[in-house]
Amino acid sequence: MENIITSKDNPTVKLYQKLSSSKKERLQYGLFVLEGLRIVEDALKEESGITQLILTQKAHERFGEELLQADLRNTRTIVISNELGNRIASTDSTQGVFAMCRIPVSRSIGSIICDNGKYLVLFGLQDPGNVGMMIRTADALGINGVIMSGSCELYSPKVIRSTMGSVFRMSIAIENDADKLFDELNRADITTSAAVIDKDAVPVTECTFEGRQAVFIGNEGNGLPSDIAQRCSRRVIIPMHGNINSLNAAMAAGILMWELSK
Amino acid sequence: MENIITSKDNPTVKLYQKLSSSKKERLQYGLFVLEGLRIVEDALKEESGITQLILTQKAHERFGEELLQADLRNTRTIVISNELGNRIASTDSTQGVFAMCRIPVSRSIGSIICDNGKYLVLFGLQDPGNVGMMIRTADALGINGVIMSGSCELYSPKVIRSTMGSVFRMSIAIENDADKLFDELNRADITTSAAVIDKDAVPVTECTFEGRQAVFIGNEGNGLPSDIAQRCSRRVIIPMHGNINSLNAAMAAGILMWELSK
Repeated sequence: MENIITSKDNPTVKLYQKLSSSKKERLQYGLFVLEGLRIVEDALKEESGITQLILTQKAHERFGEELLQADLRNTRTIVISNELGNRIASTDSTQGVFAMCRIPVSRSIGSIICDNGKYLVLFGLQDPGNVGMMIRTADALGINGVIMSGSCELYSPKVIRSTMGSVFRMSIAIENDADKLFDELNRADITTSAAVIDKDAVPVTECTFEGRQAVFIGNEGNGLPSDIAQRCSRRVIIPMHGNINSLNAAMAAGILMWELSK
Repeated sequence: MENIITSKDNPTVKLYQKLSSSKKERLQYGLFVLEGLRIVEDALKEESGITQLILTQKAHERFGEELLQADLRNTRTIVISNELGNRIASTDSTQGVFAMCRIPVSRSIGSIICDNGKYLVLFGLQDPGNVGMMIRTADALGINGVIMSGSCELYSPKVIRSTMGSVFRMSIAIENDADKLFDELNRADITTSAAVIDKDAVPVTECTFEGRQAVFIGNEGNGLPSDIAQRCSRRVIIPMHGNINSLNAAMAAGILMWELSK
């Protein structure tokens, strides 16, 4: 058994906590945190730049053998006491598996474009759970990439957790400047559809999604700004027979990605 | 201004807290709790049997005039101190609007069947947020009813909150006995489709959903028990091009309801 760290003043433990709670620290160090066996395994599998593995004593006994089989040449590992694990955990029943991971160099839109590619643009999304769920669904439905613009931070622990590992499999680009966003999409000859709830919009059941396509989803409460919707090639609506306010942004995105991908 | 209650030992305040935290108490009193302006308004609008309105002093000043315009003949109202409001609230930034509501008599499957009706069957769902989101989406897409079987308690505060008021608009039946469930569905001549991830299942893109239809969604982690899937008229699969584990139960239900309703 390795040396077990029990002090809350251990520099690695302190760094983990800083990264976990502060966007500023994440940006400064270029690192984000992971918690949970499955997502850490996913990250190891996709060679996602884990720099530091932190296992509680209990997790080391239960999962250590399995986890330490991965290629850990660039990864340090420490074992901490179970009490310290509970201290840094974000959940009440932690598995005691934590990691720090390098934030990858932000990808440009150009770099994620492929033939007949289908894309989801998250414009002004603020709920981390929603954003994670959309990335996860994009992964399931075989969407070719997600583009984030003016949305919440991708590397916050809550977004990362909600993606259930899809963050390591999906191509994700970030472009917060709306002009550049449209320039890039136009340059790549991508048809853009704005998801709106205007009665004048084209029902998605009447749309075809041939060639390169991107669907814009707007903020949970306010939808897309009208100027952004107007700059898209077309405005589409999910026809609803029931209470229109009951479709949340993630579910609307799921249905549109389904139409885009099938 | 009415008499402001400040004591945590006030019987109404104590009852609210009991109902909020315990399924047993909810069953015993036949009451459940609501928190938040919008859902309380929805409940008042749908005449959903609110027996008790509880407003903090602040909420009484801000929303009192609006809320008290509703038909409150069968509703008592009390005003409590803001401190007491924070104490009974389930969120950090409460609006200070609380209510107790009668649990309606459980509806039978027979009573929610209509011509060409489309239904969602939640079989063994355990995550309250997921269940609430599915009820909410069913409402948006004009599904005619939701049938719950062996799933989490409909009247837990977390399910109720996640439905965003749809619980008051949707027809919801509860039948925990699988034999009776299939008897009722067969008697009503409903075609049943089990959502599975078997390769042998019919891709949903090749299905038609004419006439009365019900789609079965299974547990978040384990899906439908195979004997339940076998008892359904057919087994359907959402064809996925990406990572199959990335589609969560609520999103799968959303896509199936979309196909069912469009």
